[in-house]
Amino acid sequence: MNNSNEQNNLKIIKEQGITYPKGFKSAGINSGIRVKRKDLALIYSEKIASAAAVYTQNKFKAAPLWVTEENMARSGGKLQAVLVNSGVANACTGEQGLQDARETVKYVSENLNIKEEYVAVTSTGKIGEFLPMDKMKDGVKEAVDKLSAKGGADAAEAILTTDTRKKEIAVSFDLDGQEIRIGGIAKGSGMIHPNMATMLGFITTDIAIESNLLQEALQYAIAKTFNMISVDGDTSTNDMVVVLANGLAGNSPIVEKNKDYHQFKNALNMVAEYLAKEIARDGEGATKLVEAEVLHAMTDSDAVKIAKAVIGSLLVKAAIYGHDPNWGRIFAAAGYSGAQIDVEKVDLYLKEKIVSDGQPLSFSRELVRKYLEESPEIKIVIDLKLGEGKATAWGCDLTHEYININTKYS
Amino acid sequence: MNNSNEQNNLKIIKEQGITYPKGFKSAGINSGIRVKRKDLALIYSEKIASAAAVYTQNKFKAAPLWVTEENMARSGGKLQAVLVNSGVANACTGEQGLQDARETVKYVSENLNIKEEYVAVTSTGKIGEFLPMDKMKDGVKEAVDKLSAKGGADAAEAILTTDTRKKEIAVSFDLDGQEIRIGGIAKGSGMIHPNMATMLGFITTDIAIESNLLQEALQYAIAKTFNMISVDGDTSTNDMVVVLANGLAGNSPIVEKNKDYHQFKNALNMVAEYLAKEIARDGEGATKLVEAEVLHAMTDSDAVKIAKAVIGSLLVKAAIYGHDPNWGRIFAAAGYSGAQIDVEKVDLYLKEKIVSDGQPLSFSRELVRKYLEESPEIKIVIDLKLGEGKATAWGCDLTHEYININTKYS
Repeated sequence: MNNSNEQNNLKIIKEQGITYPKGFKSAGINSGIRVKRKDLALIYSEKIASAAAVYTQNKFKAAPLWVTEENMARSGGKLQAVLVNSGVANACTGEQGLQDARETVKYVSENLNIKEEYVAVTSTGKIGEFLPMDKMKDGVKEAVDKLSAKGGADAAEAILTTDTRKKEIAVSFDLDGQEIRIGGIAKGSGMIHPNMATMLGFITTDIAIESNLLQEALQYAIAKTFNMISVDGDTSTNDMVVVLANGLAGNSPIVEKNKDYHQFKNALNMVAEYLAKEIARDGEGATKLVEAEVLHAMTDSDAVKIAKAVIGSLLVKAAIYGHDPNWGRIFAAAGYSGAQIDVEKVDLYLKEKIVSDGQPLSFSRELVRKYLEESPEIKIVIDLKLGEGKATAWGCDLTHEYININTKYS
Repeated sequence: MNNSNEQNNLKIIKEQGITYPKGFKSAGINSGIRVKRKDLALIYSEKIASAAAVYTQNKFKAAPLWVTEENMARSGGKLQAVLVNSGVANACTGEQGLQDARETVKYVSENLNIKEEYVAVTSTGKIGEFLPMDKMKDGVKEAVDKLSAKGGADAAEAILTTDTRKKEIAVSFDLDGQEIRIGGIAKGSGMIHPNMATMLGFITTDIAIESNLLQEALQYAIAKTFNMISVDGDTSTNDMVVVLANGLAGNSPIVEKNKDYHQFKNALNMVAEYLAKEIARDGEGATKLVEAEVLHAMTDSDAVKIAKAVIGSLLVKAAIYGHDPNWGRIFAAAGYSGAQIDVEKVDLYLKEKIVSDGQPLSFSRELVRKYLEESPEIKIVIDLKLGEGKATAWGCDLTHEYININTKYS
């Protein structure tokens, strides 16, 4: 990450999130959907923004995602407000769910005095329950009233479910003398993979860029970040990442894939990677962030398969929780990933090199055990020595607390 | 199962396993690989038997599986003895592992005075450790000395690892006036899916059948049973199922797919299904057997995808452990399975019908909760109302005890 930061002249701002870029306000309030916690977040851009979004591939895609997609199609990739509620997912709710999502759009549109097609809505929480529309109506009004250029943290809090902490970041970088700002918040949790806990990401930026290029940049970033903590097709009913770019930074608008585009794309990727890792680190019950880096696979796609299989293996996750240097479980996961492997070539690093050319080395179990126990971030490196493919995936350990959380949810 | 039992005139014998068919002996002893428990099983047929086997698809296939495949290729699908050790998997052990497996074959061949090519070997336990060959040598001798027509239960015990109980069954049926017997033992455990805990199955029968037809019958049965508790490609380094048919029942040998073949195939399937369900029921830390039946999918393959996704969903498994009628998690799993679904048609049954045409019904949460709490077997039925595809998969709940077991294994 240091390298890309230097390339981008990227400054990381710890204290602010989505309201750091110019012209964005937000709010996070309790509307009464949940007993005490904040449950409604509103993100608003003073100026109509270019927008891009990526949605879940789950067949039971939730109602608000359909409605948001509809609105963005109508507006030609423009948005001005995003409303997010937690507590009720409005998924598997049929025609009523769609009506409720559209009604919510109307509340936002009326209270902000903007066109309905500029409004995105999304939800996270319990599947199969309807939105309490009276609370939504009052909540939207209150959220609009409370919109503030300092409201980023409140919004970051309101979108959480079983998350234990907010996930937010803001960065800035210099683009031909213009300061560009990007902010982001996310929620996630669940055991990440194989997971159905919703993952949401909301990114704001004041860069001027065309919607279609923004969409391409977002897809590039998501493939390397959010999708590397969650497996394709292995997604919740409500997963969604949306980015708004309102152009208030005053840069010369990006309308082609020039140097500016690539600089922005890298910065966006860095923001997405930070948020994705924060989600993995805060996996339900997790005590550690686990990173699996796969080198020299036959193809990038093979590297992705292995990295995800390792991160997703329950036995690997449980071994890390138990501080157990049980590398055989890592190999077994790689072996069933479907990727090409020459078992007599594979090297494995876990704190130190512990397998060489597929053969176990006599490593210090005590040293590796200590690393697994004491380090908050565990790095697994698998070198296949076959080609130029590489990938990195992130996950967490599997703990008793995960079971506690997921037996008591509904 | 009742229907197929009637069709087959199948009698189920509770007390005996693999030594119930004529001409089979077995033994299970402690060779010292493990501290106290039995760790070495030997299965022996007095007569050279037709044999069939199915092996793991894991790229890190363990040494003994390679050696067994080699032997069966040389013998043209014949076997007379199967040796199984628990405690050490002899996987990821390179050239040394292959040598050790071949040496083990030699011990068995010498002590039984049979050709090496009639010997199958397999192992289950810790990956990346070498077999203690001195103990194997003495152990094989002792096992051969102890071979007995009453040794089935000892063998069933010796192959276990984290399993909490033996899995064995014997059945008999009438084939044109001849009594045919089939016996089987298995070990499994692990959380089944997504799992890397080894699954082993050993089936004996005194039917007379050609090796290639035996192989076809075995593959048919495995697709509907063992593979429905474990996902293709999602297999351990050591998974293996082998069946020996020694012909001592005296039936007219089965050399084509006639009525006799189909009767045998159904009986074999029933034995495999029983063992597979026993494995699922005894998943690490499990308190319940969970069955997911998918009806009227567009294709059988779609039905398989959904059944496995539901059985494999950690959130579904945790919800069942928590007695939580959280049907949204079942839909979410179906939704990411990749199968074709019309979300406005799906019905879901969990004790009673709780979702109709994709819409939640107002069901008695208390009644369903009581079912989840009190029934040792939980049945989920998903009716897609799209086509004629169907499938059933089995799994278990996800519990605190699973974490205990898997953090303390190595």
